[in-house]
Amino acid sequence: MSGQSVGIVKPKTQHFNQPIELSSGRVLPEYQLVYETYGTLNDDKSNAVLICHALSGHHHAAGYHQQTDKKPGWWDHYIGPGKAIDTDVFQVISLNNIGGCDGSTGPTSINPQTGKPWGADFPKLRCRDWVDTQRELMKLLGIKQWAAVIGGSLGGMQAMRWSLMYPDEVRHCVVIASALKLTAQNIAFNEVARQAIISDKNFHHGQYLQHNTIPRNGLRLARMIGHLTYLSEDGMGEKFGRSLKEGDFKLGSDNEIQFQIESYLHYQGDIFSESFDANTYILMTKALDYFDLAREYGDDPVAAFSHSRCHYYVVSFSTDWRFPPARSREIVDALIAAKRPVSYTEIEANFGHDAFLLPNARYEQAFHAYMQGVAREHI
Amino acid sequence: MSGQSVGIVKPKTQHFNQPIELSSGRVLPEYQLVYETYGTLNDDKSNAVLICHALSGHHHAAGYHQQTDKKPGWWDHYIGPGKAIDTDVFQVISLNNIGGCDGSTGPTSINPQTGKPWGADFPKLRCRDWVDTQRELMKLLGIKQWAAVIGGSLGGMQAMRWSLMYPDEVRHCVVIASALKLTAQNIAFNEVARQAIISDKNFHHGQYLQHNTIPRNGLRLARMIGHLTYLSEDGMGEKFGRSLKEGDFKLGSDNEIQFQIESYLHYQGDIFSESFDANTYILMTKALDYFDLAREYGDDPVAAFSHSRCHYYVVSFSTDWRFPPARSREIVDALIAAKRPVSYTEIEANFGHDAFLLPNARYEQAFHAYMQGVAREHI
Repeated sequence: MSGQSVGIVKPKTQHFNQPIELSSGRVLPEYQLVYETYGTLNDDKSNAVLICHALSGHHHAAGYHQQTDKKPGWWDHYIGPGKAIDTDVFQVISLNNIGGCDGSTGPTSINPQTGKPWGADFPKLRCRDWVDTQRELMKLLGIKQWAAVIGGSLGGMQAMRWSLMYPDEVRHCVVIASALKLTAQNIAFNEVARQAIISDKNFHHGQYLQHNTIPRNGLRLARMIGHLTYLSEDGMGEKFGRSLKEGDFKLGSDNEIQFQIESYLHYQGDIFSESFDANTYILMTKALDYFDLAREYGDDPVAAFSHSRCHYYVVSFSTDWRFPPARSREIVDALIAAKRPVSYTEIEANFGHDAFLLPNARYEQAFHAYMQGVAREHI
Repeated sequence: MSGQSVGIVKPKTQHFNQPIELSSGRVLPEYQLVYETYGTLNDDKSNAVLICHALSGHHHAAGYHQQTDKKPGWWDHYIGPGKAIDTDVFQVISLNNIGGCDGSTGPTSINPQTGKPWGADFPKLRCRDWVDTQRELMKLLGIKQWAAVIGGSLGGMQAMRWSLMYPDEVRHCVVIASALKLTAQNIAFNEVARQAIISDKNFHHGQYLQHNTIPRNGLRLARMIGHLTYLSEDGMGEKFGRSLKEGDFKLGSDNEIQFQIESYLHYQGDIFSESFDANTYILMTKALDYFDLAREYGDDPVAAFSHSRCHYYVVSFSTDWRFPPARSREIVDALIAAKRPVSYTEIEANFGHDAFLLPNARYEQAFHAYMQGVAREHI
């Protein structure tokens, strides 16, 4: 599947002056959301699709900001004319969540009550807070019901939460490489990454911006840990194996040996630590850890999903060991038991959790087919 | 299987004045090895068993140093009268490898040429250096041939290397939860742990002792990463699940939530960072990364094993994802192709890589049965 690019896109910023009460009980007095749209809203505004981003994602999901950009948005392979999320059919709305660090109100924003960056004082967030702020944007755009809410990983959790909180406002819920809740191992990886950040000498209890510094090193380690767990063992073996970047294995030589995989992880860590905010990382991973779709429904996902009214599409990837197919099948099984309409595709892919972002013919075709069905039924 | 304790044991220290040339080409002018023995050497010294330790191991494998010790040696469950490695039959020799931090010469020792701790200047080591220094101790004890060389994880690599370097001096080679070489993913986890240490502000390029400090925080992170990967997802799920140590999930409360798994990892990291040496950690993980049994045999493990003369016993554990059963089967397959006698047991166990240290009835029985065979055949 080829498809076209959405071309040059321009982010918009929407300010909200109405205070919003968050799940923590704290109130955000005002906030802004930065978002992009791809495709055209139809007359009855029934073709709008919401993209919910994952841990390190943002609003720039497709197209280019400038002609000279080397890379398009993070999900460009799946959003565009003729692509799985077909912008000839849908209007796609993609925003940066609050708590983020790409333009929406978050820890790097100024706290109006202190005149200083929020930093670690930014309120804790849960998925439902993102749903509620996404819904404020929805209302402002005059959209009454999403044709689909779509997300991978943490984005899939937001999509599921949408379907329970506002069942009448979601027609389709697309949940990719996600889970009903994290396992102890998932939480453990998140916590080690957070500890790397928190224990960086430049963290200053999260008020690093007030000290004119950033915990670059901690964030770099956090990203290396995270990135490593998003890849599959086989994928890494195929791509890097035991190839050397520097040095050799020769006996009798005292040289420094560096494997390709080490150099690659350093590079990924370096880039991320220059572009992402440490408090946002902590806040997003905490929201991941806390998420438990069925908690308020007596820990019964069947009871939870019985509140929904939408169709579900669930996708998993064979070598994803952070959110493995077994976790997606738990979602599917609960949906079936709750008598909800659900389609499920398990994709053979060699790139672990990252597979949800990468080209894959069967994934593209299956996703495209599902979305064409969404278009045919309702728009 | 119950078995008895070896009781109170006392470490011995052996100094070696003869310089030893290491695989790096560098020479260690003198060194000492600290070791323990359990059981009695028979008259023809044919019942000696060598235990090779793993990454964070040491010489204290069984028994207690004092009546008041809360915990016995690290492999006490498998070493003692009537246990798998039966000290009524064998004399077990367990030493701390050079480069270690428990009494044998390593980075915390004084470099005689400078009068200061070696620190990061301690020579790089490979498995073969441990084999050679273990062999110096063997010669000094008057042992001509090991009844068995036994090791788990990195210890298994030493055992295999023994069987190739000194084929006439090993009758049985027991390789537990090990591999012919690390995968890219294994290396990546080691590297992230090393980066955590190296980027600690107290690391001082490895000369932290000269600065009267230790990179406690980096070592703590390294251990958390390592420990996490030694456990299985299911094991962690069963032991900790999503149970909370502090706080609650209640909406509208802004409390700090801490999961049990987080508290457990902090605890493990804290203990380790007070007791282990950071340069040793780097040195040991590098030796793990470099190890590749067949490299010098044209990358052909069958060619490698054709140089051996011993019997092999290979053990793996179902939920070990750092050294999974597939890695052990590669060893077994190469041994079969090389026409070497080999027995293999895959143990169903829920505790990941750590399973090789933990009680497990089938593992105990199979290991015991193999070692009884060793005793019957040769001693």
